[in-house]
Amino acid sequence: MKNTPWQGIFPAITTKINADESINAEGTARHIDFQIRNGIHGLVTCGSLGEASTLTLEEKLQVAQIALEAADGRVPVLANVSETSTREALRYIDGANKLGVQGFMVMPSVIYMADAREAMLNVRTMAEAAQQPIMVYNNPVAYRVDLKPEHMQELADCQWIHAIKESTDNIRRITDLRNALGTRYQLFLGVDDLAYEGLALGCDGLLAGVGCAFPRETVALYDLMKAGNFAEALPLYQWMTPMLHLDVSTKLVQNLKLIDALVGVGTEYVRRPRLPLVGPERAYIEQVVAKALATRPTKYQSVM
Amino acid sequence: MKNTPWQGIFPAITTKINADESINAEGTARHIDFQIRNGIHGLVTCGSLGEASTLTLEEKLQVAQIALEAADGRVPVLANVSETSTREALRYIDGANKLGVQGFMVMPSVIYMADAREAMLNVRTMAEAAQQPIMVYNNPVAYRVDLKPEHMQELADCQWIHAIKESTDNIRRITDLRNALGTRYQLFLGVDDLAYEGLALGCDGLLAGVGCAFPRETVALYDLMKAGNFAEALPLYQWMTPMLHLDVSTKLVQNLKLIDALVGVGTEYVRRPRLPLVGPERAYIEQVVAKALATRPTKYQSVM
Amino acid sequence: MKNTPWQGIFPAITTKINADESINAEGTARHIDFQIRNGIHGLVTCGSLGEASTLTLEEKLQVAQIALEAADGRVPVLANVSETSTREALRYIDGANKLGVQGFMVMPSVIYMADAREAMLNVRTMAEAAQQPIMVYNNPVAYRVDLKPEHMQELADCQWIHAIKESTDNIRRITDLRNALGTRYQLFLGVDDLAYEGLALGCDGLLAGVGCAFPRETVALYDLMKAGNFAEALPLYQWMTPMLHLDVSTKLVQNLKLIDALVGVGTEYVRRPRLPLVGPERAYIEQVVAKALATRPTKYQSVM
Amino acid sequence: MKNTPWQGIFPAITTKINADESINAEGTARHIDFQIRNGIHGLVTCGSLGEASTLTLEEKLQVAQIALEAADGRVPVLANVSETSTREALRYIDGANKLGVQGFMVMPSVIYMADAREAMLNVRTMAEAAQQPIMVYNNPVAYRVDLKPEHMQELADCQWIHAIKESTDNIRRITDLRNALGTRYQLFLGVDDLAYEGLALGCDGLLAGVGCAFPRETVALYDLMKAGNFAEALPLYQWMTPMLHLDVSTKLVQNLKLIDALVGVGTEYVRRPRLPLVGPERAYIEQVVAKALATRPTKYQSVM
Repeated sequence: MKNTPWQGIFPAITTKINADESINAEGTARHIDFQIRNGIHGLVTCGSLGEASTLTLEEKLQVAQIALEAADGRVPVLANVSETSTREALRYIDGANKLGVQGFMVMPSVIYMADAREAMLNVRTMAEAAQQPIMVYNNPVAYRVDLKPEHMQELADCQWIHAIKESTDNIRRITDLRNALGTRYQLFLGVDDLAYEGLALGCDGLLAGVGCAFPRETVALYDLMKAGNFAEALPLYQWMTPMLHLDVSTKLVQNLKLIDALVGVGTEYVRRPRLPLVGPERAYIEQVVAKALATRPTKYQSVM
Repeated sequence: MKNTPWQGIFPAITTKINADESINAEGTARHIDFQIRNGIHGLVTCGSLGEASTLTLEEKLQVAQIALEAADGRVPVLANVSETSTREALRYIDGANKLGVQGFMVMPSVIYMADAREAMLNVRTMAEAAQQPIMVYNNPVAYRVDLKPEHMQELADCQWIHAIKESTDNIRRITDLRNALGTRYQLFLGVDDLAYEGLALGCDGLLAGVGCAFPRETVALYDLMKAGNFAEALPLYQWMTPMLHLDVSTKLVQNLKLIDALVGVGTEYVRRPRLPLVGPERAYIEQVVAKALATRPTKYQSVM
Repeated sequence: MKNTPWQGIFPAITTKINADESINAEGTARHIDFQIRNGIHGLVTCGSLGEASTLTLEEKLQVAQIALEAADGRVPVLANVSETSTREALRYIDGANKLGVQGFMVMPSVIYMADAREAMLNVRTMAEAAQQPIMVYNNPVAYRVDLKPEHMQELADCQWIHAIKESTDNIRRITDLRNALGTRYQLFLGVDDLAYEGLALGCDGLLAGVGCAFPRETVALYDLMKAGNFAEALPLYQWMTPMLHLDVSTKLVQNLKLIDALVGVGTEYVRRPRLPLVGPERAYIEQVVAKALATRPTKYQSVM
Repeated sequence: MKNTPWQGIFPAITTKINADESINAEGTARHIDFQIRNGIHGLVTCGSLGEASTLTLEEKLQVAQIALEAADGRVPVLANVSETSTREALRYIDGANKLGVQGFMVMPSVIYMADAREAMLNVRTMAEAAQQPIMVYNNPVAYRVDLKPEHMQELADCQWIHAIKESTDNIRRITDLRNALGTRYQLFLGVDDLAYEGLALGCDGLLAGVGCAFPRETVALYDLMKAGNFAEALPLYQWMTPMLHLDVSTKLVQNLKLIDALVGVGTEYVRRPRLPLVGPERAYIEQVVAKALATRPTKYQSVM
């Protein structure tokens, strides 16, 4: 397993839940194995898609442990730090380090809309405590904190910060980061339905959502674009796009768990206050996935 | 102590923190006593202003315990439920009930942007578990979940839901709630700088922020307006307004803790990622408070 | 007729249109007479509600002329200046002055999102050209230009600027303006469903929309509140509110023309690209108005 | 000159203004000639960037006439229809047709936020009156009206509608349009700093802003990408990007006229309420352009 520089497809894995809302360790491990066998290059546990917001600190460590065992050294496992206070973040990082994770994704601030001074200090404090490679997860849409290129320049002296997960929903940010910072950071696109655009602009990889269910297809997109074969990549991306839109939604967890279920790699169980989809919302997802499966390009098809 | 119907001034108290980020029990208790001696009618622990987002579940129960002891039966103590999963919310409610709180404020969903179906189920589940009077804290600005009048109508059969803390930033909502629901719910205005408007429209009380430092002044505003004396209330409100604006800010905790410190009823210590104010932001607050203190109406002045 | 200081109810009158999209002079005049007979204190021609955006400069002068004749000196007539260039605004002001209007409402900038420097210069240029009392129409929601209290302070030396039509949708602005500027400007609330709140905060009048169809009711609200009788004003306002919401909509013209038609004081004809309401939108308005008419308080009822 | 299908670089030309705010015909013509000599494929008169909002209908026809004479058949000239009523739009289209323009760009609705039903009818009415190829300018950011893929499907039977200028600021729209409509419409990207992304996704051309001052560079970007040479196109785009950002601003007219002036192809004169840039805003643009000129790739340099 190569550690950093991280490159390629890193799914933000879903956390499998049982009907009683307890964690489904076996299902989570099996899904991870499926993704690795289909070529993904790394994975992140307990991100937004992994239902971080409804898991306790101890449960998130449990999921990291499950992932490490399932990955078994084949790909790096990053633990996402989404604690709402710096104190708890440090406690979580310590716990995950003891488990042996290969790095961390960190959210600059959760719930509290920190300003740049506060968010930068929080990131730096976590990175220094981790003493491991860090990917900064910049998502002002969901978390309303934005670390801009100038802030990432201020953090550039911190050796542990290796990568940025770009989730601003503003594709221009990739060019602005490259213009401001060259290749100081690895850039991962964190918005599923801007994946092609991001790779066209030279991103190093994708923090993928729908990739959890379609890993080989997602790896193929990456490989084609890295090989400069945009002409073949574009129709593959156009095929994927209706599903990729489902990752850009407040219901992304339910959407993607329904995709998992329809594709046969997971169930729809979620923790409350989330509820499984019903009615027209559910019918819409089912129709999108049915159409995608009916027109699935066999050339890059994930194997079970 | 009268229990519900709740009416009057209910500060959302600040949680006093020590320099090492531990909870300052003595300071918290002293501040509560100050507020009660100045006439407030109830209080809420660990709301947004009480730094709920950086406290663990156990710490929030500790603060509820501090408040109950400090209040000593003089006013009702409501514990705010801000857990990010229904499971943890139920665990918190159980703990607070064992301590003997007089009711709960509940957030429909935190971090996850629940839709109305999910948020209503979450509120109902918490209310039924609590078996105590509930105030629903509706704040779509901060939490991006909005329980509208039609949703409160759907919840009207749940006997435990007594009140709404209206924090939509849309003052029209008071009239819409009255038109849709009459007096089914007690209505508390939760936005400091819409307090006069809310009381003019017939609200039953205020969930106050700046009221933590200026309780008697805030009680006076309430009393004047309930007595129909708008002419005397208006200049009092105009005097307060520059401070009240400081409650409507992502920095409300730091702003109001700085007010506490300047007025002599608290300190500025906060938990990270929050940091105390510096530079022009700090100077601005200091100038607003200095002006307010210089022109403070002696007639309604809080006593130490 | 008293000229400034303007006070009371100033409807922003609808412009009556014929089926072929030409201006209906007789209908417009009749509607104005109806409003004046029911007690309004002034009126404004060709505002947003008057379909300014689809009328040529020459047509707007024609409507001003119609209004002056219909008012016949009973109330002041203000011509709204909504030209998209300063050049044309000056040409319009010159034309309206020659007709003998009693003042102008001016929009700081239309289409172009001017910054404060540009908008202030535009307003000042128009005011100095007018040499007549001016009401500044501040509506950042519709026009995305906001003249804040500090900007109105910069303009305070311009003797022609007498009043502000406050349409920010932010009711706090009234208190901020009073705190910053005392009574330098007359303050008119320009958002129908914030009328009670504005008058409670001491506004001098309303730029009314629904008041076009319910003038006596609207004058009654104003009179009650100026007399300090909030207790009687509140139920009147609660009765009106579902209709007042219809003024705060991108479809305000169609909504209020439908109200005019249902009440019997106008027709629904509009100029394209606007189209009359159809389907559920239309049914909703009809139902709101039917309910309002069924519960109409006879005490203040407008007379035909 | 080939008429439709339109393809390539179509600048939305700036309208040259004299110091007294009159139209500078000679300067406008000279700038158009410069752009054509540097390879552009078509042009549009009096768009947002052409100060449409401050020109009268007659002046806009005058600019179309200037452009037709300057182009002299070398490239198609499209007249932008930005009238605020359907009546005036038809009058403008008739006038421009008599001048001999090769087509129209049409805005679905200006000032009035038409809904889809109204906007579609407006577009269809204009297209049928024009009896010429039409490009629909979809810019919900500036004009708050959005014709979505499903609306463009409804309009697909109208033979005159040939192209869409996509200015939603949402690059995903290109893929959604292709998935919904295949190649029914030519797609032009109308947001300068999404140009590379749009061309990578298969757009047929650009409605360019900064291209007015850097036409050959912009044509080179297009040619490289159409040839599949993304590797050479990307650094060219990265070089351009800081200038391209200046097109995505409420001050785009002043920004791009300052670029014109600094590059030597125009002046900064604008019509009020716009004012030329001053202070830090101006200094920032000057610094961006100075840096771009200092690092200008000689290979594709526009010739004077």
